[in-house]
Amino acid sequence: MELDLEKTLRVILSGIHEAVPEDALRKKVAKALAKGRPLRIKVGIDPTAPEVHIGHLVPYGKMRQLQDLGHVGVVVIGDYTAQIGDPTGRDATRQALTHEQVRVNAELYMKQLYTVLDPARTEVRYQTEWYGTFDLAKTLRLLQEVTLAQMLQHETFRVRYEQNKPLGLHELCYPVLQGYDSVAINADIEMGDPAQKFNILVGRDLMERQGMEPQVALLMPILLGTDGVEKMSKSLGNHVGVLMSPEDQFGRTMSIPDAVMENWYALFVGQSGEELAATKKQIAADPMGAKKLLAEKVVARFHGPAAAAAALEDFRRKFSERTLELENIPEARLDSFSPASVTNIVATSFQLSNSEVRRLVKQGGIKLDGDTLTDAEAPIDRPGVLKVGKKKWLRLLG
Amino acid sequence: MELDLEKTLRVILSGIHEAVPEDALRKKVAKALAKGRPLRIKVGIDPTAPEVHIGHLVPYGKMRQLQDLGHVGVVVIGDYTAQIGDPTGRDATRQALTHEQVRVNAELYMKQLYTVLDPARTEVRYQTEWYGTFDLAKTLRLLQEVTLAQMLQHETFRVRYEQNKPLGLHELCYPVLQGYDSVAINADIEMGDPAQKFNILVGRDLMERQGMEPQVALLMPILLGTDGVEKMSKSLGNHVGVLMSPEDQFGRTMSIPDAVMENWYALFVGQSGEELAATKKQIAADPMGAKKLLAEKVVARFHGPAAAAAALEDFRRKFSERTLELENIPEARLDSFSPASVTNIVATSFQLSNSEVRRLVKQGGIKLDGDTLTDAEAPIDRPGVLKVGKKKWLRLLG
Repeated sequence: MELDLEKTLRVILSGIHEAVPEDALRKKVAKALAKGRPLRIKVGIDPTAPEVHIGHLVPYGKMRQLQDLGHVGVVVIGDYTAQIGDPTGRDATRQALTHEQVRVNAELYMKQLYTVLDPARTEVRYQTEWYGTFDLAKTLRLLQEVTLAQMLQHETFRVRYEQNKPLGLHELCYPVLQGYDSVAINADIEMGDPAQKFNILVGRDLMERQGMEPQVALLMPILLGTDGVEKMSKSLGNHVGVLMSPEDQFGRTMSIPDAVMENWYALFVGQSGEELAATKKQIAADPMGAKKLLAEKVVARFHGPAAAAAALEDFRRKFSERTLELENIPEARLDSFSPASVTNIVATSFQLSNSEVRRLVKQGGIKLDGDTLTDAEAPIDRPGVLKVGKKKWLRLLG
Repeated sequence: MELDLEKTLRVILSGIHEAVPEDALRKKVAKALAKGRPLRIKVGIDPTAPEVHIGHLVPYGKMRQLQDLGHVGVVVIGDYTAQIGDPTGRDATRQALTHEQVRVNAELYMKQLYTVLDPARTEVRYQTEWYGTFDLAKTLRLLQEVTLAQMLQHETFRVRYEQNKPLGLHELCYPVLQGYDSVAINADIEMGDPAQKFNILVGRDLMERQGMEPQVALLMPILLGTDGVEKMSKSLGNHVGVLMSPEDQFGRTMSIPDAVMENWYALFVGQSGEELAATKKQIAADPMGAKKLLAEKVVARFHGPAAAAAALEDFRRKFSERTLELENIPEARLDSFSPASVTNIVATSFQLSNSEVRRLVKQGGIKLDGDTLTDAEAPIDRPGVLKVGKKKWLRLLG
């Protein structure tokens, strides 16, 4: 175990959003190192969906850095809280999952986390271990530890209450349950994104009330999605999934705006300090090169370096083909067609019969800017690039 | 079973505060009578203290009337909710009871209720029967049925929240648990005092959400305490306890203001309509006679008619003795004594030595208006009746 306090603190604090309270963190780390006791770093997950994307991995990257110093990562599987769903940032009540769904999801989830975590220094703990024996009386005693006023300091709850949006009593229990997890596993540090601050501090409070040395919140910045604007999220479709093919991972990474690369280099690659400064210069000098390198790193993490090299090669080939194709495609004005239906436009432009066009439409073979057109007789009322079959293109001008 | 709808409704509605909703009650009763099905009348109790007073008995009086028509009284022992304590009307969090305390209290409590209820038509149900198998997941599913906004319509909760008084999450669960009791026992009617309206309607709502025919709230007026002002309550000391001696019950009843007699005749004796009207006339014509009759009825209920007659006789004897004594006691002006100390006043007035007076004080034998005087040398600075030993009196005038 690494016993150097300053070095350990540097690793903990590098690239984070916030540590709360930071002075308690320093004391806690100093005390643990003095005793040669590994820190217990908690992340809680609600495996409501089995697919992990690289946005989920941000805290685990930091956890891995700490595992490499000899500390213990504790992943708490929220098999009880997943039945509620974390209300944080939600303006409507979530759909509850069954216990069984959660279990199945959790196993697949952990498999994906081990692409980052060191299994030898990871504890996987299911809430069932402690909540399995919680009867009603015990539950009520736990809820007694928390007041409504305290819960309504939670932005999400207050806003939902004030805006008259439904807020179930079970949702008010969510932060308490997440908080008690920290009591059960005796966490030193709990990690999460900045929106998790409230829930993590409830855990701190509960530990304190139990006479334990309370945990510290370590909040990580948010990884932006491929759109470069929103937080990465499967429901927005701006994600890079751990289980995606090398080709998809590479392509999606290549689609991010240049300005987002630094965020990914910091949070996905884990760069900070001088290393990140050097990368910034590289991005400025050769954005395309820096992005290819990033995409290679993404693929290499999940599929190995050979797959990464192949994905790069594949991307280069397609990219040059597409450039060639897109330079040579014919153009036509939308208003030159009457009617401006799919059938008429495609049949006229590529010398096909109407029935051939209709067959292509049925097969999903005609796309406008990537959207498959499904109605052969519908008018096309916006400009864009029409792709017919695999190799024919037509640029429609407005 | 009495199948006459109008007669049954008359019994249900006579002397009540409110039935909510009343039209649903009529339909429900009609439906049950048509099927010859007995109604299930619920009262929930939290036996937080083992002593029952006649204020507690009000709903059971009505329940007994309905038992006499062939319906079933269901007493739900809140062995879970008593561990929270009903927050209704409380501006601070109650102290929780242990399961064991609750059990012991409940048994003594039921014994006292059987002074009113018909045991053959009473079901006693402990919440343990359903909540004993409630694990955390089941609890969360129940809490999901209720929103925070709904709970904050509860006057008590809203006021406590708005006034920044602690309101534990466990207290928000109280109405939900009481409500689910009605689901568990399939209640037709739940009785309580007017402050219980909110909790009872939560039960109605939960039954409806479960697809059951929902219960109706039957709210009884409040029995006033012996002070004639506040609701009867042990903590205010204005109560007549079921377990009190005949003498105490008789004496306390005799101490109520004349204006309160009608409330007791209605809610304790169970009079209504013409019978109550006749009593009102009797009260006006002979208040002392009406009160003695009421006091006899109280004692007779809990100790039998012989004890009631004896208590009346005992009261008459003491009352006439006291009247005699109080008519013949000597009088003196406070300012005629110097010093106006206990010793000087008593020694002078009754030809006792100072040391005899001091001994009497030590024995607690000197009282001013019933307050034992403990300091022989202290001045008496207010007028009142001084009682010396068992039979000597002195009226001190200001």
